[in-house]
Amino acid sequence: MAVGDATFPEMPAIAGVRLGTAMAGIKKPGRRDLVVIEAPAGARMAGTFTRNAFCAAPVTVAREHLASGEAPRYLVINTGNANAGTGETGLRDARATCEELARLAGVPAEAVLPFSTGVIGEPLPMERLLAGLPAALRGLGEGATAWRQAGEGILTTDTRAKGASVTLEIAGETVTVNGIAKGSGMIQPNMATMLAFVATDATLEQGLLDALLRETVERSFNCITVDGDTSTNDACMLISTGRGPTVEGDEAITVFRNGLVRVMTELAQAIIRDGEGATKFVTLQVEGATTRREALDVAFTVANSPLVKTALYASDANWGRILAAVGRAPVEAFDVDRVTIDLGEVRLVEQGGRAPGYTEAAGSAVMAREEILIRIDLGRGEASATVWTNDLSHDYVSINADYRS
Amino acid sequence: MAVGDATFPEMPAIAGVRLGTAMAGIKKPGRRDLVVIEAPAGARMAGTFTRNAFCAAPVTVAREHLASGEAPRYLVINTGNANAGTGETGLRDARATCEELARLAGVPAEAVLPFSTGVIGEPLPMERLLAGLPAALRGLGEGATAWRQAGEGILTTDTRAKGASVTLEIAGETVTVNGIAKGSGMIQPNMATMLAFVATDATLEQGLLDALLRETVERSFNCITVDGDTSTNDACMLISTGRGPTVEGDEAITVFRNGLVRVMTELAQAIIRDGEGATKFVTLQVEGATTRREALDVAFTVANSPLVKTALYASDANWGRILAAVGRAPVEAFDVDRVTIDLGEVRLVEQGGRAPGYTEAAGSAVMAREEILIRIDLGRGEASATVWTNDLSHDYVSINADYRS
Repeated sequence: MAVGDATFPEMPAIAGVRLGTAMAGIKKPGRRDLVVIEAPAGARMAGTFTRNAFCAAPVTVAREHLASGEAPRYLVINTGNANAGTGETGLRDARATCEELARLAGVPAEAVLPFSTGVIGEPLPMERLLAGLPAALRGLGEGATAWRQAGEGILTTDTRAKGASVTLEIAGETVTVNGIAKGSGMIQPNMATMLAFVATDATLEQGLLDALLRETVERSFNCITVDGDTSTNDACMLISTGRGPTVEGDEAITVFRNGLVRVMTELAQAIIRDGEGATKFVTLQVEGATTRREALDVAFTVANSPLVKTALYASDANWGRILAAVGRAPVEAFDVDRVTIDLGEVRLVEQGGRAPGYTEAAGSAVMAREEILIRIDLGRGEASATVWTNDLSHDYVSINADYRS
Repeated sequence: MAVGDATFPEMPAIAGVRLGTAMAGIKKPGRRDLVVIEAPAGARMAGTFTRNAFCAAPVTVAREHLASGEAPRYLVINTGNANAGTGETGLRDARATCEELARLAGVPAEAVLPFSTGVIGEPLPMERLLAGLPAALRGLGEGATAWRQAGEGILTTDTRAKGASVTLEIAGETVTVNGIAKGSGMIQPNMATMLAFVATDATLEQGLLDALLRETVERSFNCITVDGDTSTNDACMLISTGRGPTVEGDEAITVFRNGLVRVMTELAQAIIRDGEGATKFVTLQVEGATTRREALDVAFTVANSPLVKTALYASDANWGRILAAVGRAPVEAFDVDRVTIDLGEVRLVEQGGRAPGYTEAAGSAVMAREEILIRIDLGRGEASATVWTNDLSHDYVSINADYRS
């Protein structure tokens, strides 16, 4: 299942960013499961990673290499195996992957960052993985096909590839931001989603690149949840090739930030629309909170409530479950009489109970939609947050009772 | 679905505690849905209630009456309607219910405590409810049948009535503790479960009664979760008739506390075994934590993970999901290399990865059982906690996509 239609966009090339894929037989035969992304010499990268304490071996190695001072040139991503919960063997395998790619490409091992996604706790099939690297390197290309195939090559339980692209004008020149992402289950990223790779030809100073990545991830990937489960492998990388105009000065930074947010948000939302078993796309908008953290806490409590999620699946305007979830959110000195809850354009709750004008027919009409907005005003402050989620369907249970992830 | 067999026990009478039921047509015709519990003059009661900010009208009124100084004599419980999210009307209805029962029984209204469970947000059908009270009063009885029928009269999506009873010897005399409870979904109580009523003939001073209720609820009902959703109506009442021996002195208090814990724990576990769609009963034992709060946080993070719960449903020894859930628990400065995870007698995880001796066959053999123990040692302290939960099945989705609760 998945919500709505989604076509992978025709991505413009970003000069110097080349992507290659291979069918290495890691996941299953005849499927792209190995991706190499090459950045040109002089490119800068910023990365954010999972906060799961059991982070995967490739996350540890990617962090080390990013901090090594060596300029990163290659990202190598395999699907079908997360190389997580694999202890020392996992670290050795992640390092060996980088070393082999570095040898083939003629760069230091620290210039290669590894990423894995798939089943947790199985050793990486190193022989097949290493054997696939030459084909991925031979296939490196800049065009739309290379971007689309890379988008396909990182998927696990996803039913479709996820890409987003914007073109901006900065200092009179055209700048492109392209991104691909994957993720469908074990999704409540805490720092970055499962895997996302975003590139731009704009030139950004390293500190600005880092700051913009953190800031935009906070407003996009960190605002989605499928099942409240934070993965061991979450990572989001942002590449600046440095070949385009320089992003500096308030105006240019604002233009670039807005474009980046748009790409990140489209990718994050694409993950929710393709969430495991999803039949609904739900926007939770919490307003009137004391702090953004409080707004996020309320939004995530509602978004992760199995009872709210099953009601959404059933298209049941069961506002009592929304109210109960809001009521158990970790909010100090909560005055429920000031809370209002709206479902689309229909007022559900005010003054601690059902809104006077509410009718079941009006609520049901909104719930029948495929895209639903739930707006919660806490009536106690000025802070707000928006979180995107989906429903809990029979297919979610089937997928996760059958698939070993 | 439900885990294992469960027969409602043959409860001995507790002199002066009488229970009566009626079929008032609140839930559906021909089903017990109204219960009155009478305590004798001179009885003492203690109560704990939900911490959901949107607490139901009967919870507000029960709290008020308990604090009024008037000795409580009657509990009146309806199922089929939670009288939650009903604003001022709900409060009026809860008070009117107490007043009518008080009038019929010849006591002040403050001596009556109201409880409701069922669908949220619909007004109580007052005419039918009030019309049922005389029949419930006429039917008051002390024996095993009265306890069983009261156990049936408080159910919602539960598939079976839940009762527990112990007899103890205190000061050379026999003391009985009887309890009934209900709850199947919207279960992660925060103070007390959906509804539980426990009575004893032992005599306890009010402060001790309050303290023992809080303490034993903390170790029983507050350690279970079906779906992480805290209800608007949770309440647990403990009645001491004051007709039996007095519980005083360390030895007697220990004997009584242990008996009370046993009744509470049996009731709490019965709720989990009968959790919505449950096919497995799972004990999560977290040890080696810095504080009990930390142990509970880890246990509840694993217990509420949809990915762990669907793996349990599938009898899939998917230890990677347990590891990922432990890793995202809110624990500061978490050294995963010190963590061990055991599934029954099988070591799954040590030193940050799969235990060397682990085999899929051994893991699967444990997962195939109906009752499963998961033991997590954080290796960082002396505190521990035990939490009980169940799996996430297709039936959970069906029940909650079909039932308006």
